[in-house]
Amino acid sequence: MKNRSSENTIKIIKTITEMKEVIKKYKKMNLSIALVPTMGYLHKGHLSLIEKAKENNDVVVVSIFVNPTQFGENEDYGVYPRNLERDSCLSEEAGADYVFKPSVEEIYPKGYNTYVKVEKITDKLCGASRPGHFRGVTTIVNKLFNIIEPNRAYFGLKDAQQVLVIMKMVEDLNLSTEIIPCPIIREKDGLAMSSRNVNLTKNERQIALVLSKSLFEAKDKVKAGERDLDKIVSNIKANIHNEPEITIDYVEAVNMLNLERIKLLEGKVLIAIAVKIAKVRLIDNIILEGN
Amino acid sequence: MKNRSSENTIKIIKTITEMKEVIKKYKKMNLSIALVPTMGYLHKGHLSLIEKAKENNDVVVVSIFVNPTQFGENEDYGVYPRNLERDSCLSEEAGADYVFKPSVEEIYPKGYNTYVKVEKITDKLCGASRPGHFRGVTTIVNKLFNIIEPNRAYFGLKDAQQVLVIMKMVEDLNLSTEIIPCPIIREKDGLAMSSRNVNLTKNERQIALVLSKSLFEAKDKVKAGERDLDKIVSNIKANIHNEPEITIDYVEAVNMLNLERIKLLEGKVLIAIAVKIAKVRLIDNIILEGN
Repeated sequence: MKNRSSENTIKIIKTITEMKEVIKKYKKMNLSIALVPTMGYLHKGHLSLIEKAKENNDVVVVSIFVNPTQFGENEDYGVYPRNLERDSCLSEEAGADYVFKPSVEEIYPKGYNTYVKVEKITDKLCGASRPGHFRGVTTIVNKLFNIIEPNRAYFGLKDAQQVLVIMKMVEDLNLSTEIIPCPIIREKDGLAMSSRNVNLTKNERQIALVLSKSLFEAKDKVKAGERDLDKIVSNIKANIHNEPEITIDYVEAVNMLNLERIKLLEGKVLIAIAVKIAKVRLIDNIILEGN
Repeated sequence: MKNRSSENTIKIIKTITEMKEVIKKYKKMNLSIALVPTMGYLHKGHLSLIEKAKENNDVVVVSIFVNPTQFGENEDYGVYPRNLERDSCLSEEAGADYVFKPSVEEIYPKGYNTYVKVEKITDKLCGASRPGHFRGVTTIVNKLFNIIEPNRAYFGLKDAQQVLVIMKMVEDLNLSTEIIPCPIIREKDGLAMSSRNVNLTKNERQIALVLSKSLFEAKDKVKAGERDLDKIVSNIKANIHNEPEITIDYVEAVNMLNLERIKLLEGKVLIAIAVKIAKVRLIDNIILEGN
């Protein structure tokens, strides 16, 4: 709230019914509502979203939900880091008014059977190696939008494909929420902020720097005039191959609209990387522009 | 509107943008909005929905959209009857404030790729013989709900499975619209009202009476104590088989919640019929209760 008093503390809401009632109240007052959907274990990337949300909206809701339907069977749903108390403190400091933390049982009750699916662009990049992942993402985001009816929702561009998929869902389903994509926030040494970074050992974390370094190198090459995206991609792959602990899932240069691979840099292009270091899946990307 | 003046005439809205703006205005005024989603060529069944909507809401929107994604390739999308002028007059007489008639090109623009799907209960009854039909229905209804944000939406129980599928979507996706199922409206001789009835010849229309007659007979048998649903279903099938012009798609007695077949009448049961007479697909049903 714009005029919040000094004794204000963040409110944690744990049921859909209560969340809907709070929203109803603010809607009647014609206040603008922002949603920052997260899986918790907040880092500075999330906090930058909350801060931006606070600047432009009356009420800021941070949702925290480790969404089982977007994890594959052998993925890290079980070990995904969780810490509600820490997340609530950080959300409050960043300016959030509410933390919405529903239970898995209320979000997906027995007999749950409805899914929202964006086709085509979800078959590429992360979608190719994580079948069902984006169906889980669009379903939970659609549900959160229906519960919270946000005027604006804030997403980090580290998950660039996720942002594009959600924008496509919003456009196709005529949703009224405006999607605000926000820049990747990086550690001082370049590593893209991710809740999964805490699962890296010190050594693995050092190795992971090859991702951001390769992307910055690509940027420099484009600045110097390189337009051949195959060369840029090969160069990134070669850098990563130098680190035997890393397995590449993909390195691709794609069109920002349909995620189709492109060979020649013209306009905006997304260079996206996904790898595994030990059991930790990491992604990173950069958007390059050819003049 | 509750206080509409005598010179009021119904407004026809043909774009999503304009519809959203009208809705925004009423939302700011905290008025309640009702949606009656139709494929047009309105009959007394639709009009009963509009009248009921008018009784309980401030603003009534009738949408008219022959939705291509819910028709199979060899179905009757092309010959589905259409008449906007007639529909607008009838909607106005019944108490509607707006007709929303978007174009196919705006609802499904080039590159459209997002679908809402309820699983399991959509595999049964009409879903079994019309693959993709209910995915088309839930997708268009979800879009209309996002555009019109209705407090209540009115559906006829002639399409009983459709009502149950939409209720499931609303529940699973946490939508805020209340679904109001309304009773089947019948011609004096018993034929369930349907826009498709105009595609029947006089003779076919006479033959079609076997559907409602068989359902009323089933009701009488239950009143007289019959609880064996296999017997009831067999009897309906035998009646229909007496009409050589009719092909049965299904006759089933199912649980109202999961649409699973049941054999013994306890609580509420849906007896549902789908047939083809010449090229016209007709459905009818009755809900029976075994005290």
